Amino acid sequence: MKAHSGGRLTVLILSGDMEKGMAACNLALSALAGGRQATLFFSFWGLSFLKHSGGHGRGTFLARAFSALNHDHAERQRLGRFNLGGAGRWAMSRLMWRRRIPSVLESLVQAHHMGAHIIACSNTLELMGLDRKDLIPEVDDIAGAMTFLDAASEGVVVTIS
Amino acid sequence: MKAHSGGRLTVLILSGDMEKGMAACNLALSALAGGRQATLFFSFWGLSFLKHSGGHGRGTFLARAFSALNHDHAERQRLGRFNLGGAGRWAMSRLMWRRRIPSVLESLVQAHHMGAHIIACSNTLELMGLDRKDLIPEVDDIAGAMTFLDAASEGVVVTIS
Amino acid sequence: MKAHSGGRLTVLILSGDMEKGMAACNLALSALAGGRQATLFFSFWGLSFLKHSGGHGRGTFLARAFSALNHDHAERQRLGRFNLGGAGRWAMSRLMWRRRIPSVLESLVQAHHMGAHIIACSNTLELMGLDRKDLIPEVDDIAGAMTFLDAASEGVVVTIS
Repeated sequence: MKAHSGGRLTVLILSGDMEKGMAACNLALSALAGGRQATLFFSFWGLSFLKHSGGHGRGTFLARAFSALNHDHAERQRLGRFNLGGAGRWAMSRLMWRRRIPSVLESLVQAHHMGAHIIACSNTLELMGLDRKDLIPEVDDIAGAMTFLDAASEGVVVTIS
Repeated sequence: MKAHSGGRLTVLILSGDMEKGMAACNLALSALAGGRQATLFFSFWGLSFLKHSGGHGRGTFLARAFSALNHDHAERQRLGRFNLGGAGRWAMSRLMWRRRIPSVLESLVQAHHMGAHIIACSNTLELMGLDRKDLIPEVDDIAGAMTFLDAASEGVVVTIS
Repeated sequence: MKAHSGGRLTVLILSGDMEKGMAACNLALSALAGGRQATLFFSFWGLSFLKHSGGHGRGTFLARAFSALNHDHAERQRLGRFNLGGAGRWAMSRLMWRRRIPSVLESLVQAHHMGAHIIACSNTLELMGLDRKDLIPEVDDIAGAMTFLDAASEGVVVTIS
């Protein structure tokens, strides 16, 4: 692993599906364990992973409507496949618990403690009518695409969309 | 930003969902604004972003059937989540308009004027029975995976799938 | 192409959709044809592409239930869009056959013969209650995220999610 000390992983998360969040976190935790730096940039539906359960969109009717539609938050996300009205989500959560696989939120908190840089996309926050107080405390920064590109300009870049 | 002048962003777009197109264009516009080169390679459903409203598949019955199924084109795409039979698409378009966020097509045209290289996947065109005259004039090239790999061999690579 | 001899492509496949598998294989075959090395790392739903038709999850009730839900295997996958209860899948397979485009499995076998390194994600196998004998013989390794990161630390990285 020494060869990659000082290496870097940048993950762009555009999806709010549970399994996509798991994949992002697994990669980040592996990178951190191997001595790399990790940056996680959450944009669009990916912001669900950073919104605490009480967060909701403000402003126009439409921002509030989208916020009401999208029930997902840091502690609960749907599956991209076989969600089955929540039954699939429940089954997968339970299967993960049986296999002692941490949830996305638990993994995010762990990644944060291991030094990951967690960024929420400023454009998405504006579009959805959300602000800093709607997000979990583990979020380090609110920033735009330029910040992602700077982080991504060296090392491994993974897009989870 | 100067440090990255001469840097490069290559985006592979496999999805035809509106929010994925927005993400791709935002990244490209940020890269161009920061002095990088940007290449956008559209393949599979992503080709919807480049098909003008009158474009349609020719050839076999099946190519025509797929073309008839896929109503999306450069001026209109469905949302990947909460499309709700078009209502979600309408609401998101309206929300973007209220927030003065440009549409995917407007962003593509702007990226083109800022020097982005816009490529349509030749294999997909063949599979779907489409040709150059079905595409918007901003398309610079029709090319295969090898061209994508050459562009991607330096700089930041993002896959929107 | 000579300029890229010794270059490398690493593809992370998180999706089990047929068109995503085609994209991954097309990229790998182009890379191999151009003198690059190619590593394909299949995780989560992507594991469907490596599961032979008789493979099924063991262990807890939930692992078996997910295995029963997910009918897809190396020889048959659903489309991410316009699957239409299997009709879309059938039409796309037929369209590919008419255009002489190989299936995902045929492409994987060809990539294997051209030297691609095909890896199944060990965490996913454990989560789904699958093991080596449920996978097609073309799988070269069963490994974790660290192996993906090592392969991805140079060359082009594409994520199909």
